[in-house]
Amino acid sequence: MAATEDRKWKILESTRLFERPWLTVRKDKVELPSGQINEEFYVLEYPDWINVIAITEDGLFVMEKQYRHGIGEMSYEICAGVIEEGETPLEAAKRELLEETGYGEGEWEESMVISGNASTTNNFTHSFIARGVKKISSQHLDRTEDIEPILMNVEQVKELLVSDKIKQSLMAAPMWKFFATEGLL
Amino acid sequence: MAATEDRKWKILESTRLFERPWLTVRKDKVELPSGQINEEFYVLEYPDWINVIAITEDGLFVMEKQYRHGIGEMSYEICAGVIEEGETPLEAAKRELLEETGYGEGEWEESMVISGNASTTNNFTHSFIARGVKKISSQHLDRTEDIEPILMNVEQVKELLVSDKIKQSLMAAPMWKFFATEGLL
Repeated sequence: MAATEDRKWKILESTRLFERPWLTVRKDKVELPSGQINEEFYVLEYPDWINVIAITEDGLFVMEKQYRHGIGEMSYEICAGVIEEGETPLEAAKRELLEETGYGEGEWEESMVISGNASTTNNFTHSFIARGVKKISSQHLDRTEDIEPILMNVEQVKELLVSDKIKQSLMAAPMWKFFATEGLL
Repeated sequence: MAATEDRKWKILESTRLFERPWLTVRKDKVELPSGQINEEFYVLEYPDWINVIAITEDGLFVMEKQYRHGIGEMSYEICAGVIEEGETPLEAAKRELLEETGYGEGEWEESMVISGNASTTNNFTHSFIARGVKKISSQHLDRTEDIEPILMNVEQVKELLVSDKIKQSLMAAPMWKFFATEGLL
């Protein structure tokens, strides 16, 4: 097989088909290393995202319950959001946790950087662990957000995880990593 | 807070904006339980997907190396694909593994069902574990697929996982789950 550097697809044409605040669709005409042409390859362009496994001083996880219109179901989640222009991933993560739950402070570390779909999306999600957070303000949601924060103990979160109730893979991956590497399973 | 059943968003209008073989975009006008209206909520419609953690009789993992145009990088992956009409998730998983790698047979179980993005996509990914697979045919790729199968031992796959080289969250989540629950970390 060809070396890695030879495997990149060549973009022959690129058009932005659709551009709205929450959805940007790019259409690329690409040439594969084999010489094959793909006339229409769609890439969804997004800013990078963050999410946060936040744990209080008392060892409780700051979880969220939220209706998710894509799958049409209620979903148990961790705090997640978009990195705004000019923000670092860490700044965005701290801001989102404060807005969605009112929790802040604590010790923060980045635990992994992953893609929701490496084929069709161009962005990455930076996942953080925040230990020792405290309730320091009230919740401040956007007009169309509908998020219910819930504190859960480690056994309750583990139960969600092992019973596959953490449906969103961008959250399930760092949560499995955290539970596995912390010896919590 | 309202009960779960009261939290569902009401679809006031729904239009399919864009419909191509690899991308369908739906635009919904929705009403939240709060009464707030969101004039444009975009949902990406896909068929359900599968992926497979496949392990040979000799304990080697059937991995793949593939260029991913969304993130513009080479990616270490497990076998993944689309469930075709009329197929069960298991049938699709067996077909995809055979097409992409030439491996088949063995003992199969479904390990988890997750969403790439519960907010913006309407589909689920069924993740399988296949133990004791054998090389039973040659690879049969679609014209625009460019997949290099690689056999790796457990230490090599663990190294990919702990160093965050499994970039796709739909693969990282079931792989972390597998390594954690099998005691391989």
